[in-house]
Amino acid sequence: MAEENTIFIGKKGTMAYVLAVVTQVNSGATEIAIKARGKAISRAVDVSEIVRNKFMKDLKITSISTSTEEIATDEGGPLKVSSIEILMKK
Amino acid sequence: MAEENTIFIGKKGTMAYVLAVVTQVNSGATEIAIKARGKAISRAVDVSEIVRNKFMKDLKITSISTSTEEIATDEGGPLKVSSIEILMKK
Repeated sequence: MAEENTIFIGKKGTMAYVLAVVTQVNSGATEIAIKARGKAISRAVDVSEIVRNKFMKDLKITSISTSTEEIATDEGGPLKVSSIEILMKK
Repeated sequence: MAEENTIFIGKKGTMAYVLAVVTQVNSGATEIAIKARGKAISRAVDVSEIVRNKFMKDLKITSISTSTEEIATDEGGPLKVSSIEILMKK
């Protein structure tokens, strides 16, 4: 997966990421990865559901995987956080 | 999937649901479905990650699927909400 076809879900509104996915696909991408960590995971699922149900009905979810990542924190020990990757393909 | 082997993720703390999964498996279930809607989706992923990484390393995620559900609201029109189902198997 080329880095530019990966959408990282952060704290913006859901529709900002929906637009990012739609823009990527309209500019020629045939496969998109939507990635999120922690509380943004719910938003990642919203983004993929809205894209496929409302904007691009030919885009299918081909795989969903979850993992646990360790991120460094200011206060010493590493923090474990869940992550999700949703792959969508034309 | 028998109804009693389905864990619905709500507003309790993550560990309450981790315990529910572990209890189900220890009482003989070999397959568990973890379901959540809306913001609880992130917690559902946390629950499955904690269970498989920390408590039951022989439990694997066999499938993850998402969908959009319509729920009735007090203020008229139906509300669309994303949902997730994580299947785990021994």
